Amino acid sequence: MIKNVILCGGSGTRLWPLSRKLMPKQFLQLFDNKTKSLFQKTIERNSIVCNEFIIITNEEQYFLSLDQIEELSENSKFKIQNPKFLLEETAKNTAAAIAFAAFESNEDDILFITPSDHLIKNEEKYVEAVNKAKNFAKEGYLVTFGIKPTTPHTGYGYIESRIEDLGLRDKVLDVIKFHEKPDLETAQKYLKQNTTHYPLSTTYYLWNSGMFMFKAGVYLEELRKHSPEVYEETLKSYEKRRIINDNQIRLKDMQNIPDISIDYAVMENSKNIKVILCEFEWNDVGSFDSLIEEIESIESIEIDSENNFYYGNKKVIATIGLKDFIVIDTKDALLIAKKTQTQKVKEIVNQLKTQHSHLKNNPKSKIHNPILNSQLVVHRPWGTYETLIEDEGYKVKKIIVRPGKRLSLQKHFHRNEHWVVVCGTAEVQVGENKFLLKENESTYIKMGEIHRLANPGKIPLVVIEVQVGEYTGEDDIIRIEDDYERTH
Amino acid sequence: MIKNVILCGGSGTRLWPLSRKLMPKQFLQLFDNKTKSLFQKTIERNSIVCNEFIIITNEEQYFLSLDQIEELSENSKFKIQNPKFLLEETAKNTAAAIAFAAFESNEDDILFITPSDHLIKNEEKYVEAVNKAKNFAKEGYLVTFGIKPTTPHTGYGYIESRIEDLGLRDKVLDVIKFHEKPDLETAQKYLKQNTTHYPLSTTYYLWNSGMFMFKAGVYLEELRKHSPEVYEETLKSYEKRRIINDNQIRLKDMQNIPDISIDYAVMENSKNIKVILCEFEWNDVGSFDSLIEEIESIESIEIDSENNFYYGNKKVIATIGLKDFIVIDTKDALLIAKKTQTQKVKEIVNQLKTQHSHLKNNPKSKIHNPILNSQLVVHRPWGTYETLIEDEGYKVKKIIVRPGKRLSLQKHFHRNEHWVVVCGTAEVQVGENKFLLKENESTYIKMGEIHRLANPGKIPLVVIEVQVGEYTGEDDIIRIEDDYERTH
Repeated sequence: MIKNVILCGGSGTRLWPLSRKLMPKQFLQLFDNKTKSLFQKTIERNSIVCNEFIIITNEEQYFLSLDQIEELSENSKFKIQNPKFLLEETAKNTAAAIAFAAFESNEDDILFITPSDHLIKNEEKYVEAVNKAKNFAKEGYLVTFGIKPTTPHTGYGYIESRIEDLGLRDKVLDVIKFHEKPDLETAQKYLKQNTTHYPLSTTYYLWNSGMFMFKAGVYLEELRKHSPEVYEETLKSYEKRRIINDNQIRLKDMQNIPDISIDYAVMENSKNIKVILCEFEWNDVGSFDSLIEEIESIESIEIDSENNFYYGNKKVIATIGLKDFIVIDTKDALLIAKKTQTQKVKEIVNQLKTQHSHLKNNPKSKIHNPILNSQLVVHRPWGTYETLIEDEGYKVKKIIVRPGKRLSLQKHFHRNEHWVVVCGTAEVQVGENKFLLKENESTYIKMGEIHRLANPGKIPLVVIEVQVGEYTGEDDIIRIEDDYERTH
Repeated sequence: MIKNVILCGGSGTRLWPLSRKLMPKQFLQLFDNKTKSLFQKTIERNSIVCNEFIIITNEEQYFLSLDQIEELSENSKFKIQNPKFLLEETAKNTAAAIAFAAFESNEDDILFITPSDHLIKNEEKYVEAVNKAKNFAKEGYLVTFGIKPTTPHTGYGYIESRIEDLGLRDKVLDVIKFHEKPDLETAQKYLKQNTTHYPLSTTYYLWNSGMFMFKAGVYLEELRKHSPEVYEETLKSYEKRRIINDNQIRLKDMQNIPDISIDYAVMENSKNIKVILCEFEWNDVGSFDSLIEEIESIESIEIDSENNFYYGNKKVIATIGLKDFIVIDTKDALLIAKKTQTQKVKEIVNQLKTQHSHLKNNPKSKIHNPILNSQLVVHRPWGTYETLIEDEGYKVKKIIVRPGKRLSLQKHFHRNEHWVVVCGTAEVQVGENKFLLKENESTYIKMGEIHRLANPGKIPLVVIEVQVGEYTGEDDIIRIEDDYERTH
């Protein structure tokens, strides 16, 4: 049996403003008619070949992951049972993340390492590749997955491989060398090598997909051999882990772990590697240019305009004389980018970070500059909230509480709150009082009063909250008790 | 003394999405650091030379005009006393509008006709031109104002004029011929004629500014002579006018009046015309290209981008590889237009009209397609409202009631309303009850109950209204009593 280790981090910069720090691209529900995220599609796909799941992420994305898994279980034939979460206190790249998963497994467990933010089509060929890899992983190899290149892409690493034993082990190759992202000329050379000589040639270049398969013990052995510091520091940190429950483990003291990828730490040095030549369609969705190959533009009104892609929400978008552009309109940010240049979004994010740091000492900056962190809909363990308007002296929010969930028991020093239930039924605690609030009913929480909002029902609870007070910042909150052990 | 006749109509198409049918460009407060509109600046400017005002507009824009005059009186040294409003039931172009103003005046009254949507700089030269015009208007001439052209503009009409009596009457010319908007070649020819030979030449081309001055009686006489049908039909309609009070006259039965401009109806045919050569700066703000000469772009994050203009509201705008574009971002519509092509905005509005007509039979279209009519902030006689969110079963609005104003006494059949006062003090009537509601207080209006919201105070009242009900359309309203005589 195979255990799927899902790497689920990400800084949310490459698809900004759709992706944010707290909403990296794997969680964006852009696919299958906006019903599914790459994370959900990854789980669906891997459910066919794996029966256990370890998800490596961080505390901030834990609830979002859990939400999406729950949603998937409700709506899909693919169910995963009790996924185990390893929550890193800080991101230290793939060598360490995979080591944690290996420490958490038996040494003979076969680990299938996959990113959570790639798109793969053609399931049959995927299953075929995974099964082939499994045989070699069992034999003690580190197995990588190489994608048959279709273009001289300069955004991917390449695996130079050798076809050693073509008759017997078709599509399983030996690795000669890992190459970093090449320039265009080099990439073209790689492709030429493939097309001119294959299958006669013995050398073949493949895209490095970032997927791996091996026994847990084999990986740790190779890591200790080639990157002993990563091994030692990861082990130290693992030993200090805090076990919240069977399925939730918080990793601590990670500051000394080297920030290094599995490619550098292990793959480039090991002699014990095989690569599977994969023929399924694969897209790393690493920029808007690759995203728009997979999703449909919304409608727009175009005058003398052509070959544009539009993403928006209800707003009318109209253009005059615009050609070959990508327009991404969200509630708090608008991006207009020339096609083929969308990788420069990183530079925008960097500029925003610089501006943001200037504003850091201004307490209001946290409120008015969520641009880097999250979209206006903010995910919480109990559901979501969205700020509808914020002005001097007041703020209006739409709060959605999922069935069976509740917010923390809390109080505020600077604001009063008016709640109007517009959908579902709320259970409200104010001071010692507990009562139900139905649709079209309202209540009032006075400044300083201890209160709690819960959804005891079976459908989502929607509350419009009107806050009135001199200061309505998110940090004016004292949590007395919390189902999710949050202190802030 | 001079009476200023302000033409204040407009379809709101040329600066869409900033301008809308209910918010034409003269009311957009884009100038003087976003504090003033072209309408307000027109009144300020003309207050120097005029002591009476007739404003010709329609019922829909009446309250907006009144609001902006009131605001101007509060904040400016320029005050206008009791402007008279002529409210047309339908727009029938300038020949008729000016005739109404003339019928409403004594025959010897000197009328100064000005659009309300042009920008003029250099007040001294403006006053000089107006005074010069006055002398000729007194003598019985139809006086027009010609602007000294600075570019071969193809968006303006031109006045071909003759310098007859240069020594005595400097800068007052005889009109030879009115020319419609020329092509570029012709416009260049006009400018060449001006620059090559002036002041030796006796022929000179000027931009037609759309401003006029004459005695009321002289205009009506010339109109009767050259366009008798316009004269007769306008007179018939005028005689059926409804006088609401001294300052508000509603014009009825306008359907038979020919839709024709003063230029075609009178000026091109009269022999009795002088043109003032004006040297003040003048901009008709007829497209985004001319608007952006006058207002500043907001800040944006630009990568490989240059020479763009951005208009938006709080949202972060970022561009990659965008050059020579105008980006106009409003809450419900986004326009991205190549500079020099912004006049094609008309085509977008036409497409929207077509789409809109398809949706006409759907009652929800009124709610979801305000794109052509108004921005999300809707002006009412008593203040404004803005829809913050609208979803199945509920709607949230921010309502601002101006001091001393009140909404109609009303009821709804399909919705309940929760009101939370977040600023100021409200006087609320529910059924027979009347009570005050202060900041941070709330009340509930049950479906079917007669109610009224008023602001008895001295500062604006801000109320967050949460509507809950199966149908929350604006047309679910029965008005029992209204300060503004509205029936719908």
